[in-house]
Amino acid sequence: MQAYSLPILPQPKRVGLSTEVMGIDEAQQPISLRIIEEQAWTLYLNATEIVTVMTIGDYPDLLAVGYLVNQNLLENINIITAIDIDHELQVVVVRTDAAAPPVLSRRIRTSGCAEGTMFEHVLENLPKQILNDTSILSTDVMMQVLKRINTTPSLYLEAGAIHGCCLCQQENIIAYLEDVGRHNAVDKIAGLMHTHKLDGSGCWFYTTGRLTTEMVIKTVQMGIPILVSRSGFTAAGVTFAQQYGLTLIGRARGKRFQLLSHPERIAFL
Amino acid sequence: MQAYSLPILPQPKRVGLSTEVMGIDEAQQPISLRIIEEQAWTLYLNATEIVTVMTIGDYPDLLAVGYLVNQNLLENINIITAIDIDHELQVVVVRTDAAAPPVLSRRIRTSGCAEGTMFEHVLENLPKQILNDTSILSTDVMMQVLKRINTTPSLYLEAGAIHGCCLCQQENIIAYLEDVGRHNAVDKIAGLMHTHKLDGSGCWFYTTGRLTTEMVIKTVQMGIPILVSRSGFTAAGVTFAQQYGLTLIGRARGKRFQLLSHPERIAFL
Repeated sequence: MQAYSLPILPQPKRVGLSTEVMGIDEAQQPISLRIIEEQAWTLYLNATEIVTVMTIGDYPDLLAVGYLVNQNLLENINIITAIDIDHELQVVVVRTDAAAPPVLSRRIRTSGCAEGTMFEHVLENLPKQILNDTSILSTDVMMQVLKRINTTPSLYLEAGAIHGCCLCQQENIIAYLEDVGRHNAVDKIAGLMHTHKLDGSGCWFYTTGRLTTEMVIKTVQMGIPILVSRSGFTAAGVTFAQQYGLTLIGRARGKRFQLLSHPERIAFL
Repeated sequence: MQAYSLPILPQPKRVGLSTEVMGIDEAQQPISLRIIEEQAWTLYLNATEIVTVMTIGDYPDLLAVGYLVNQNLLENINIITAIDIDHELQVVVVRTDAAAPPVLSRRIRTSGCAEGTMFEHVLENLPKQILNDTSILSTDVMMQVLKRINTTPSLYLEAGAIHGCCLCQQENIIAYLEDVGRHNAVDKIAGLMHTHKLDGSGCWFYTTGRLTTEMVIKTVQMGIPILVSRSGFTAAGVTFAQQYGLTLIGRARGKRFQLLSHPERIAFL
């Protein structure tokens, strides 16, 4: 199991993450542009095939562990003994010291698709604890970090059509991970936190994606008290955030933002 | 089963689709803003529970039929005898003249979540035919319609954080449907086409979402020869479009766009 040195930042020039394609523009002129490559990786928990996901394939180990953590499939298995990655077959196997939990087959059956958001599944995974972290983030630190994120070389700047997530601690970016689906990007952060024994308390989380129920619940599960997005809100996401003690900030662009839940952690400077 | 009069356009003022919430802005001033409501609807095919999806809940009948069509679950069942909607329980039942296909249980088990995109599932559902529609769309008609879409009163303009899809025929918008996930919006269009016996030939499709593999394959399955998006591309989506004869236009904003596949259907005027 590989330990990564932090911070992890995007590697937009890495071979295989994006590719050059030819086309024409509105004036019928030839253009060449970079677009994101998708790969189909299959995740195993020991001998059990869990899921096949479309991903940019940069951190299959973190994606696999984070997926398992966020699906509560590692609940009673805290010891990962090995993570085997086969880049050719695009298979990643997470090996643990105990067998897969018995609820596994039922869980997977109910996780049908609706942009990653399954309500039954969400209800099964409701966090058990309310966030009571008392850390404070000032608006000037937040805005300075958001500006730094937006100007960091990334696949988003290189090719677009990708979501990004950042785990931050005050003015430090601990990890900036991107993927074709925002769920993968979040799962990779969760995988990093699990494998590197990082605690969410005192941290804040930035996502380019919308603040849906699922995003709010995943953030609470990761124990991160503040969630910030460039995008907007949904009503259920706001309700869950208020209920679980999560500070929720949306539409954070330039110097503007909207704060809809638990403002007590934000210092307006 | 209800027949809708066309065109179907967004109803941003309809009760229950969005709600007012209070918050504060970056200057710590109180703000009130409208945000989208999500509902958890459960879809049944006859007596079989298929999936629970988060949706704005405006057209559960179209969503249910379109979901079944796009998952190839109505393959050998062309006759829908009834669609029962229970708004209180948020349940929709599609009734057919034959039992559910035997592949049902396996299909659902493999449809795990990765922003709605499952590769195995995609491979199972690969279109059988290549698009050979010879209709022509001119750039001036396309741009005029895109401008009309962007200025039509919508939940997007009212509250944001929502995806939209439009089925168009030359300068006519046949349906403009929105939902929290772009997959739902596409499925509602597919449901409309199935229940209203609309053929995709000679039509074009607009989406606010990215041009991923899944979006390309769904468009080909619907028999629509031209797919236009405000957002960008992924490499696999472009490859599938080239292979299946789909004209693919991305990053269509203002007077600009990028055309990466089958330009022969576009007249540059």
